[in-house]
Amino acid sequence: MNASVAGTKALVFDVFGTVVDWHGSVAREVRALAKSKGLRVNAMKFAKAWRAGYRPAMDRVLRGEAPFEKIDAIHRAILEDVLKQFKVTTLGEEDKANLNLVWHRLKPWPDSVRGLKRLKAKFIVATLSNGNTSLLVNMAKHGGLPWDCVFSSDTFKLFKPDPGMYLGAAAMLDLKPGDVMMVAAHKADLHAAAKCGLKTAFVKRPFEHGRGATLDLASEPDFTVNAESFLNLADQLGC
Amino acid sequence: MNASVAGTKALVFDVFGTVVDWHGSVAREVRALAKSKGLRVNAMKFAKAWRAGYRPAMDRVLRGEAPFEKIDAIHRAILEDVLKQFKVTTLGEEDKANLNLVWHRLKPWPDSVRGLKRLKAKFIVATLSNGNTSLLVNMAKHGGLPWDCVFSSDTFKLFKPDPGMYLGAAAMLDLKPGDVMMVAAHKADLHAAAKCGLKTAFVKRPFEHGRGATLDLASEPDFTVNAESFLNLADQLGC
Repeated sequence: MNASVAGTKALVFDVFGTVVDWHGSVAREVRALAKSKGLRVNAMKFAKAWRAGYRPAMDRVLRGEAPFEKIDAIHRAILEDVLKQFKVTTLGEEDKANLNLVWHRLKPWPDSVRGLKRLKAKFIVATLSNGNTSLLVNMAKHGGLPWDCVFSSDTFKLFKPDPGMYLGAAAMLDLKPGDVMMVAAHKADLHAAAKCGLKTAFVKRPFEHGRGATLDLASEPDFTVNAESFLNLADQLGC
Repeated sequence: MNASVAGTKALVFDVFGTVVDWHGSVAREVRALAKSKGLRVNAMKFAKAWRAGYRPAMDRVLRGEAPFEKIDAIHRAILEDVLKQFKVTTLGEEDKANLNLVWHRLKPWPDSVRGLKRLKAKFIVATLSNGNTSLLVNMAKHGGLPWDCVFSSDTFKLFKPDPGMYLGAAAMLDLKPGDVMMVAAHKADLHAAAKCGLKTAFVKRPFEHGRGATLDLASEPDFTVNAESFLNLADQLGC
C-alpha cells in the first residue's frame, strides 16, 4: 500500500463523471424522449451542450454575480437554452420537469457500487458534489450507491472549487483535512482539494464525454493516488 | 395500511433514544471505565446525569444565550460537571476525550437495523438529530445504520424543536413537509414536527431511561402512526 495514504479516514467523492456516467445517462433519456415525441435531436450533442452550461453558471455564483441556487434550478435554466438551441419547441412543462430530473437518475459506472462497498468497509465514504442533496439522495436510491453521508453544494451554499466545500466537509466530519481524500476524475477538483490540504485520488474515466472524446488521463505524481477504477482504488488503499 | 400515511416519501429519525440506546450504552462504558480505573461510580445515575444536561444546554443556544456548538462540545462541558458531581477527579485528558466519544458508539435497539433496512426499501431514511454529523456518521459505521442521508444540528446550526430543523430537512430533500414523516420516541419532538406540517410516527422505547423508569408511552390519535418498534412501523407502512 502507498505509504502516503496512511491516516486517511474518509473519502469524499466528486459524483458527476466520477461515480456516475452523466453523458451516457442523459443521452439515453434524451434519445428515448425524442423517439416518443417524434423529435429530431442528436442526443449526444444535447447531453454535452446541457453539461457545458453548468460550470459557467456555478462560476457566476462563486463570483457573486448570481445568488446561490440548487443545481436542479441551474440545470433547468440551461435546459431552456439548450432546447432553443436544438430548436425543440413542443415539450410541455411536465416533460421538461421530468427531463430535468434525469440528473437524479444518472447511472453509476460499472465498477462504482462494488468499489464503494469495498472502500466503505474501511473508510467513511461521502459525496462532495456540486449537485444538491435531493439529487444525490435520489441518485443513490436509484443506483444503489452506499454513501455514509451526503455533502452537497446546498450543505455549504457553495460550489467547488471554493475551499469552503473541501474544508467544510472535513470540519463536519471532525477530521483534519489531511485525513480526508478527495476522489475525482477531474484534475482541477483535485488540485483545489490539495490546496486545502486534502489527499487526492485521480480516477480515470475515459468515457465521461462519450467514446472518442480526448481527455487528459495522464497520471500525475502530485496526486496521492492515480487509479484506473474504484476497484483499483480499493486495491491501492488496501481494502 | 393506515390511509393517512399516503404520500410519505421520506422518514426522518430522532436518534438518541429512538434509534439507539443511550442509557444502556453510556452506563456500560462508564461501568467498564470505572472498573479499569478503580472508581466508585453508579454508572446508571452517571448516564442519566450526563443526558440531563443536554436539553438545557441546547435551550440556551435556541434562546440566543450561547453560540451554536456541536453536541460533542456540549457533551464535553456537561461531562466536566458530572465528573465533579460524582467526585471523579483522576481521569486524564485522553480518558475524558475518549469517554466523551461514547455518544459516537451508542448501540442500536435490537430492532433498529432490521427495521431501517425494511423502511429504506420504500422510503428515504435520514437522521434528523441534535447530534453532530461526525457523531451520527461514526455511530452509523459502528452500528450498521443504513442511512440514505444524515441531517444534523450542524447541517442547520440549530437544534430541535426549532422549526428550521424540520422544514430544513424537507427543503433539502425537495419534499413538501407533508411528504416527510418524523419518527421519534419523544412526543415533544413529534408535536413540533406536526406544527411544521410533517407526518409523525411515535415509536415506544420503554427502556430509554433504563428498566423501571416511568415514561409516557400512551399512543395518541394525533400522531399519524403509533408503533411498538421499527419492525411494527415497517408493518404499518406496508414495507
